[in-house]
Amino acid sequence: MRTVNGYATSTFTATGIASRHDLKWHSRLRDRVLAAITEFVDARCADALAGGPVDVAEDVLRGLLADGKCLRSTFLYVGWRCGADGTDAAIRAAASLEFLHAFALMQDDVMDESPMRRGRPTAHRAFANWHHANGLSGSSTRFGESAAVLLADLCLVWAEQMLRESGVDAAALDRAWPRYDTMRTELAVGQFADLVNDTATFPSLDAVLDVARRKSGNYTVRRPLEIGATLAGCDERQLSALAGYGSAVGEAFQMRDDLLGVFGSPETTGKPAGDDLAARKATSVVAASYQLANDTQRRRLGALMTGGHLTPADITHWQNLIAETGAVEWIEELIERRLTWALDSLDTADFDGEARDALATMAAACTERVA
Amino acid sequence: MRTVNGYATSTFTATGIASRHDLKWHSRLRDRVLAAITEFVDARCADALAGGPVDVAEDVLRGLLADGKCLRSTFLYVGWRCGADGTDAAIRAAASLEFLHAFALMQDDVMDESPMRRGRPTAHRAFANWHHANGLSGSSTRFGESAAVLLADLCLVWAEQMLRESGVDAAALDRAWPRYDTMRTELAVGQFADLVNDTATFPSLDAVLDVARRKSGNYTVRRPLEIGATLAGCDERQLSALAGYGSAVGEAFQMRDDLLGVFGSPETTGKPAGDDLAARKATSVVAASYQLANDTQRRRLGALMTGGHLTPADITHWQNLIAETGAVEWIEELIERRLTWALDSLDTADFDGEARDALATMAAACTERVA
Repeated sequence: MRTVNGYATSTFTATGIASRHDLKWHSRLRDRVLAAITEFVDARCADALAGGPVDVAEDVLRGLLADGKCLRSTFLYVGWRCGADGTDAAIRAAASLEFLHAFALMQDDVMDESPMRRGRPTAHRAFANWHHANGLSGSSTRFGESAAVLLADLCLVWAEQMLRESGVDAAALDRAWPRYDTMRTELAVGQFADLVNDTATFPSLDAVLDVARRKSGNYTVRRPLEIGATLAGCDERQLSALAGYGSAVGEAFQMRDDLLGVFGSPETTGKPAGDDLAARKATSVVAASYQLANDTQRRRLGALMTGGHLTPADITHWQNLIAETGAVEWIEELIERRLTWALDSLDTADFDGEARDALATMAAACTERVA
Repeated sequence: MRTVNGYATSTFTATGIASRHDLKWHSRLRDRVLAAITEFVDARCADALAGGPVDVAEDVLRGLLADGKCLRSTFLYVGWRCGADGTDAAIRAAASLEFLHAFALMQDDVMDESPMRRGRPTAHRAFANWHHANGLSGSSTRFGESAAVLLADLCLVWAEQMLRESGVDAAALDRAWPRYDTMRTELAVGQFADLVNDTATFPSLDAVLDVARRKSGNYTVRRPLEIGATLAGCDERQLSALAGYGSAVGEAFQMRDDLLGVFGSPETTGKPAGDDLAARKATSVVAASYQLANDTQRRRLGALMTGGHLTPADITHWQNLIAETGAVEWIEELIERRLTWALDSLDTADFDGEARDALATMAAACTERVA
């Protein structure tokens, strides 16, 4: 783990980096977000789970919430700062998104059958291990998946409860609920699209980017920003500038994540190398490589995408094939272009200097190449 | 399908009966609830789903919402009527619980691997069939389960959105949210307990009833009533009377449902005969039979609970064994006692005649023996 300005960067972004940027403010913000989460877990979740029938549930929840990157809460808070001064209520409102993210992660991991997340067993695996260790009858795998889906449901409920009880005033919340509902709906519908993409062998890059926009992009950057800005009473011009910025950064972030899913090291991603390939996920990188490939390369890519179990050598071969097609350069260029759009979009409205700096820093940190 | 007072009774309760009671009011109420649901689906859900990647999702949703018994919305509305006159906003608030129920049903069916619900394929089966019919790659079963979980998530979001947008005034909603959150949390935590009960061979009747109280009972009767009454501004004395009534009726309802899960006919339940036995669900009836059994009967019950695939003859044998232990009479007595408690509880507060009649009718209709 590298440390920049005393800040453990590998906990920060999907890319694990943020080297050129001063992220002390983010580190402080993240501490406040995590403190708000702990307070809410103690007050609202612990009673429901502790002493319950599945006593490991509280540990799984706390583990998942404790080491997150807090990207979504950061964007909500930065959105808020575009229209108002910082408050504890805004921190709690921002922190509520981490419950929504915990919901999404746990269900995603079940659907993808992912064994690891951030270097630890995923929730469904942790529950399956608990089931096995307690010698209960029935399938541990099945139990683990069901328990993870239920804990995810609870997180979806708690996310909304924490926002409602954040202390942000009622009129502000009323302004934000429609966007909040839109975000939650998009998230689930985007996941539908992901399921279908995963079942088609090679979707087009456009189709993949469309899912990326609706699922990860909007949900990670744009909607959190908009919700924060709406809560703070930003005007239409500011909202529109943030929407443009958010869409662009969200897509770029997803593409960076897709590159890491193919080429990232376990130290950076917390997952096995080439994890997205092993899972045969039809990500932007996979789609781009197929689109750019010549006939010979296409046949090989097709065989890898549809064949049986992949050995480490197959993964390496696949990584090399993707690199040969020029897909990496293409995706890097798309990322770069979006970063420019994002910063241009910010220039279309007035923001105070601190908020503007935070937005620029976050854009770079979320999308930057791993050194 | 029998018809009583022009009302198709088999659509009414889990028990499929309501013969002695005038249910015309319920039939009219249910029509209004279903109309409100259709309006919300048209306005809020159709856009999100139609033209989406899984075009069968809207049909699955409408199918699931269209033929429900509307028990929970009825109890919410009756709770409201304990404190205020009927309004369209109250109907919409009540109807929102049908989305919450759709969420619970879809996820339950995935976790139980149930193939049928109300005589039709369950949501995950419908999605699996769609996947297969469209020739998509990957496991249809897995796809079906993931898609059903996602549609359930959407229903959980829409439930809350429909309540918030119902038109019931903000102060009333603010009074009700804490109970609403409690209900949603109990529902998921109760399901956790169910998972663990399913993995233990024979839990005690007390353990089963505890789950029944938290999961089905509270969620079907007590919390909907309390939420309706809280929205309508009922006083503490009324709320306490409704809580007593709701707990008792909820438990009795669950026990009736458990009897039907063992002895009900497919025409009544919409599921195969002895469905709960085939699934080896540790229901109140199964737990009671084990508690009452002599040593010989216990050995046989144990063999049926833990053995391999059950043939129809095994199911019949199991049904007979349960009957021999006297478990049916015991559960009937417990149901009867709870019905008495429920009506006694209503006498501890003042309710207007119409609301009182509706509560008495619903108590009987939810728990009555199938003729």
